[in-house]
Amino acid sequence: MASEFSLIETYFKPLSSIPTILSNSDIQIGIGDDGAVLTPLPNHQLVVVTDTSIEDIHFPKQTPPFSIAWKSLAVNLSDLAAMGANPAFYSLALSLPENLNNDAWLSEFARGLKTLADQYQLPLIGGDTTRSSVLSITITANGWVESNQAILRSGAKEGDAIFVSSSVGGGLGMGGLGLQSIFKSLPASFTLNQPEKYHQKLNEPQPRIELGLALKGIANSAIDISDGLLADIKHILQSSGLSAELNYADIPLTKEVLDYSQAAEQSLFPIICGDDYELCFTVPAEKMPQVVQLEKLLNLKLTHIGKVLSGASNSIKINGLDNEKNLQEEGFKHF
Amino acid sequence: MASEFSLIETYFKPLSSIPTILSNSDIQIGIGDDGAVLTPLPNHQLVVVTDTSIEDIHFPKQTPPFSIAWKSLAVNLSDLAAMGANPAFYSLALSLPENLNNDAWLSEFARGLKTLADQYQLPLIGGDTTRSSVLSITITANGWVESNQAILRSGAKEGDAIFVSSSVGGGLGMGGLGLQSIFKSLPASFTLNQPEKYHQKLNEPQPRIELGLALKGIANSAIDISDGLLADIKHILQSSGLSAELNYADIPLTKEVLDYSQAAEQSLFPIICGDDYELCFTVPAEKMPQVVQLEKLLNLKLTHIGKVLSGASNSIKINGLDNEKNLQEEGFKHF
Repeated sequence: MASEFSLIETYFKPLSSIPTILSNSDIQIGIGDDGAVLTPLPNHQLVVVTDTSIEDIHFPKQTPPFSIAWKSLAVNLSDLAAMGANPAFYSLALSLPENLNNDAWLSEFARGLKTLADQYQLPLIGGDTTRSSVLSITITANGWVESNQAILRSGAKEGDAIFVSSSVGGGLGMGGLGLQSIFKSLPASFTLNQPEKYHQKLNEPQPRIELGLALKGIANSAIDISDGLLADIKHILQSSGLSAELNYADIPLTKEVLDYSQAAEQSLFPIICGDDYELCFTVPAEKMPQVVQLEKLLNLKLTHIGKVLSGASNSIKINGLDNEKNLQEEGFKHF
Repeated sequence: MASEFSLIETYFKPLSSIPTILSNSDIQIGIGDDGAVLTPLPNHQLVVVTDTSIEDIHFPKQTPPFSIAWKSLAVNLSDLAAMGANPAFYSLALSLPENLNNDAWLSEFARGLKTLADQYQLPLIGGDTTRSSVLSITITANGWVESNQAILRSGAKEGDAIFVSSSVGGGLGMGGLGLQSIFKSLPASFTLNQPEKYHQKLNEPQPRIELGLALKGIANSAIDISDGLLADIKHILQSSGLSAELNYADIPLTKEVLDYSQAAEQSLFPIICGDDYELCFTVPAEKMPQVVQLEKLLNLKLTHIGKVLSGASNSIKINGLDNEKNLQEEGFKHF
């Protein structure tokens, strides 16, 4: 059984060095001192995000360690993406039950972190490893953004077009449907074809870093929709003191998610189930052509789904939704 | 029962603003967006530390919430102190069992954070709050240090004098003895007078921030001794490729800790029990007078306990210790 020190040495220290000169230049001291020492990028601000993932709350216990690690990092990078920040480094607090303290689990967990982190040449700079009866992962991820260029929730303007991202051929609610499928809580009248596509969206979401970086100077506001589109748009509206309307028919949905919503009689499922790591952002009318260009450049679907309206009522009208009572539901809460 | 959002709003958002202009000037956006946005101090480096505290591993379950919060933050600040960094801001990941999700617990927890943070005008910039069956607190604390001035473990030089800090009238092992007293595992022949003094050392340790700041330009290396003096000096020696000798008789101990060590027949107890949030640091001979001056200036005991020796054997000889077999023990491990 590995001690804390040998565990860090074996599995996590290798994640602290990234094989390129570029991204490492700001790290003077990484893992192995009381703290990490980093040199800020000139003319940039630091963006700091923190997310905790706990077994059976944020992911099913049976999730493979590769996916647990990937997702724990991805949810943080998704928050950096929503601010328009370029990921720079991260720290890891891992609370590990004794039965997972073995090479098979730890090496797969480390590989999951590394596979996603390597996409952005993102070094692990430190953290804490401790035993616990419950598997829990807290990651604090840090990014740099050009001074005063961060995209905030509070920047939405009346008349802005509301967009949401999704993968080409994809849509909202895919991770949520993947979770229903794992819990085997699908209605009898519904069969999920290609469940693995939905499990992958749930387990290994792709943070929209490139989109967040590209939206600076285009979007007035942005948020990641991990709590569900509906709840997260409300955060934008609350911060900006505005209201909005959405067109239900324009929300990007796969045939499977649409069929499931109808079979389960939950029209709002795709926009309240959570576990979508897409960006919702608002754009002034004159910059909409730039969004169309970005779609091609980034090979993403960026769908115009509604409009920001005046009125600090923080309300959302959903056009084309037959079942108004569903609007009582308000997104997935982790508490 | 508070939801995540109302809980943050009620208890944690008030901790994000500090009533001075000075320390807040670097924070553009705090709690309430996807992440915090901070402006780096010119000509400084960022120091990042992370520590997790879990009930019944890092603190007894019955510890008051004020103390749990204080200690969870203090252990992080102690790491910043060891690097010579000035604390700047922190984020909090709180995993909370349902039975603690009430005003009595949360308001005391928030007050514990605030009381310590206010000493350093340290704002809470963000984090994550989630439910869990196990109480767990992960704090990532950040500080600024003048570029290339951080005190590292790796800087010790042959011939350096080894010092350890303690409070005036105090010594090492006080927190450890406090823990033994709470667990009621004291030998029959030993009575602990003033147990509350020892419980306070355990529960509300005072990080040595001012000492860490003052040691820049004086100490060649430093570490905080939360894992026990013996284990942590070894970290310095390992990083610096050196060995050391300590004089047991010089280690600062209260009469109670010395009596307990003898009654329990554990001579090494005060230097392996952990839970001391003091600094161990090494100083070249010519700078020893400056350490004496610091003692008075900071109202701390800074005790010369040994010497750094050549030889990359990473070994520690303890002069004046009768029971050599005790040296097999190697400090408190959280794994």
